[in-house]
Amino acid sequence: MTTREILVEANGVKAQAALAGTQKKNAALLAMAEELVCSSGEILAANSEDVEAARGKISEVMTDRLRLDKKRIEAMAEGIRQVAALPDPVGVVLDTVVRPSGIVVNKISVPLGVVAIIYESRPNVTSDAAALCVKSGNACVLRIGREAYNSAKAIVAAMRRGLGRAGLAPELVSLVEDTSRQSSADIMTATGLVDLLIPRGGAGLINACVQNAKVPCIQTGTGICHVYVDGAADEDMALNIIENAKTSRPSVCNAMEVCLVHADVAESFLPKLWERLVKGRKVNPVLLKLDERAYSVLGGRENCVPAGGGDFDTEFLDYIMAVKVVSSLQEAVEHIAVHSTAHSDCIITNDEAAAEYFVGNVDSAAVYVNASTRFTDGGEFGLGCEMGISTQKLHARGPMGLKELTTYKYVVRGNGQIRK
Amino acid sequence: MTTREILVEANGVKAQAALAGTQKKNAALLAMAEELVCSSGEILAANSEDVEAARGKISEVMTDRLRLDKKRIEAMAEGIRQVAALPDPVGVVLDTVVRPSGIVVNKISVPLGVVAIIYESRPNVTSDAAALCVKSGNACVLRIGREAYNSAKAIVAAMRRGLGRAGLAPELVSLVEDTSRQSSADIMTATGLVDLLIPRGGAGLINACVQNAKVPCIQTGTGICHVYVDGAADEDMALNIIENAKTSRPSVCNAMEVCLVHADVAESFLPKLWERLVKGRKVNPVLLKLDERAYSVLGGRENCVPAGGGDFDTEFLDYIMAVKVVSSLQEAVEHIAVHSTAHSDCIITNDEAAAEYFVGNVDSAAVYVNASTRFTDGGEFGLGCEMGISTQKLHARGPMGLKELTTYKYVVRGNGQIRK
Repeated sequence: MTTREILVEANGVKAQAALAGTQKKNAALLAMAEELVCSSGEILAANSEDVEAARGKISEVMTDRLRLDKKRIEAMAEGIRQVAALPDPVGVVLDTVVRPSGIVVNKISVPLGVVAIIYESRPNVTSDAAALCVKSGNACVLRIGREAYNSAKAIVAAMRRGLGRAGLAPELVSLVEDTSRQSSADIMTATGLVDLLIPRGGAGLINACVQNAKVPCIQTGTGICHVYVDGAADEDMALNIIENAKTSRPSVCNAMEVCLVHADVAESFLPKLWERLVKGRKVNPVLLKLDERAYSVLGGRENCVPAGGGDFDTEFLDYIMAVKVVSSLQEAVEHIAVHSTAHSDCIITNDEAAAEYFVGNVDSAAVYVNASTRFTDGGEFGLGCEMGISTQKLHARGPMGLKELTTYKYVVRGNGQIRK
Repeated sequence: MTTREILVEANGVKAQAALAGTQKKNAALLAMAEELVCSSGEILAANSEDVEAARGKISEVMTDRLRLDKKRIEAMAEGIRQVAALPDPVGVVLDTVVRPSGIVVNKISVPLGVVAIIYESRPNVTSDAAALCVKSGNACVLRIGREAYNSAKAIVAAMRRGLGRAGLAPELVSLVEDTSRQSSADIMTATGLVDLLIPRGGAGLINACVQNAKVPCIQTGTGICHVYVDGAADEDMALNIIENAKTSRPSVCNAMEVCLVHADVAESFLPKLWERLVKGRKVNPVLLKLDERAYSVLGGRENCVPAGGGDFDTEFLDYIMAVKVVSSLQEAVEHIAVHSTAHSDCIITNDEAAAEYFVGNVDSAAVYVNASTRFTDGGEFGLGCEMGISTQKLHARGPMGLKELTTYKYVVRGNGQIRK
């Protein structure tokens, strides 16, 4: 089927998901999880094909993300079961007013309709995204990176059997068959057929959506996250948070990329930072890219290099960190305003006024005081799940859960009222 | 100044509006209202220029919308004062959770930043939009239709004096100086400088935004609204509601354009409808455009013509109504799914099951049971104000008030927590 035909088909069945009700949707999710486990053999065979074909063409890290095993399939099924256990975000009465005329205005949460997701070659995102869409009453159209196409096809086939068993249309979950770039473009321009497009991937994909999408779209994921060490910081706390934010999982969007240090503490703090991130780490020591003032303190030490032009605007996603000395809290905030992707930014301080200033003036999805930026995550924020992390302001900001996959409508009941 | 320079300037001052606090914002709004009244002379002089220049070039209705007098300026000032009296939508704690790690996650409403509004030649929208933006802590950039430029310039100058008096940057409210189409295109493509674009105008403008906007945008206003008269309708109630929905103000988006009538009642109801909308109205009788089955009942009567090709997809904004006979509730819902702009659609019925089916299956911003579609309005829904009516699903749906001009951020406080 062409991508457009798949989108039209999804629109044809979306009302079924919207009206299915909690019990039926949960039954479908449990059946989807069961079918996934039952189909392990087929899924692993398809995955082997993908891994084989990708050999030598993609990096080790990418290959690891692509590869499935029984344990990972079980984890995917468990993820679906957890979504089944979450509260239904649809049909919630968000507001009720009785107006002087006597009309009753109810604001009620409803599904968006058709949600399209364009994502990288990570097969497990297939079941995560489908489960969240089914639970929120949406039809979903999935477009995975070509390296994982066979794996996703087997996963979708299994989930569709689950939907069918529960009496729902299998077409509520679809995989785009065209793995060329054309299919992404087709989705971005399918006005009237896509209620929400979520691109999950690198800066190139996100930018392509900003430039070309004519359907509603939420930008996700790019994170140039800052940690600012204030003059009144607890230095041990700062070291712990920075090590965690930078090194616990450098490939993810909530990892920090830039450290800003107040000039008053630069001379005492920077050598400790070097001890912790470079000398103290036998495996994966961090490469520090230092602005002029920071280099004047640490220059000459191992893994310390002068920062180059774009280093304060780069999402390294690696054991690399840019470091800059600032003269004031204000300068830190101004640097963040210019260079942050407005994902997650942090201040380390014991000065409550400084914390307040930072929280008020930094305009990012998540603003931290004395905690690691790595907490920006649907699960960690208590949403129970996550569809991605929005770095835009419209509709959803920060981690997106089930609620962010819904909209609302006003239901107005009267007994003949007319407007005077 | 170029349009881009104006947008850059707005971004430079937006933080001031975000941090101003309720008292200061309200003081600014009251000063804006006062300056507007004090500047009546200048504003009326500028408006006379506009009206003079437009003579013969725009319709009577448009000229009436363009023309100001002392009373209208006082009404604009009163509108600003009413916005001052509304609750502040910024700084509201929307959610608080304490996570097992001990971090406290607060979800707090914050302004969007820079809101741009492209609108028709209606000078009063200038003060409405500016007031809502100031109250919600946003900077606003206004782009009015060229016929009203001088009027808007005088209005903005007065409001800026008010902002200055209250100690806020006058640049929080700006008027685009370029009145050519280029300035609209400049706004639509100013990625990173516009947090929300609201186009208020005809289908041409809305469509230009869908096709060309690279900044976040909310579609507003186009309303092909339906009233479906069910087989179990109270016919008198139906006549009252339809007359109100069609004729009380046909030029607005919540006016009805299409009447669907169940076949069971068509023969009895359609002649009554004709009596009410045609024969009973000495002034502005309605022109009925009838599908084949409706024409077979009313054909030959005054003001009854066969419906042409596009009549069920036209926002007439006039004393014109398309009428179609449907064989079932399902057919009515299906017709609405294909032809509605998802603004406001209504069922008239005493059958509770039919009402439930209609409410569940019609996917419009406002779905009515036994009340006029003319109620779709921020004031009528109890929002206290209105920035436009969204016909899209992302971020805001239906009437947009102050809350819809905000987003949120997560503020996370800890005492050294790291993610395990």
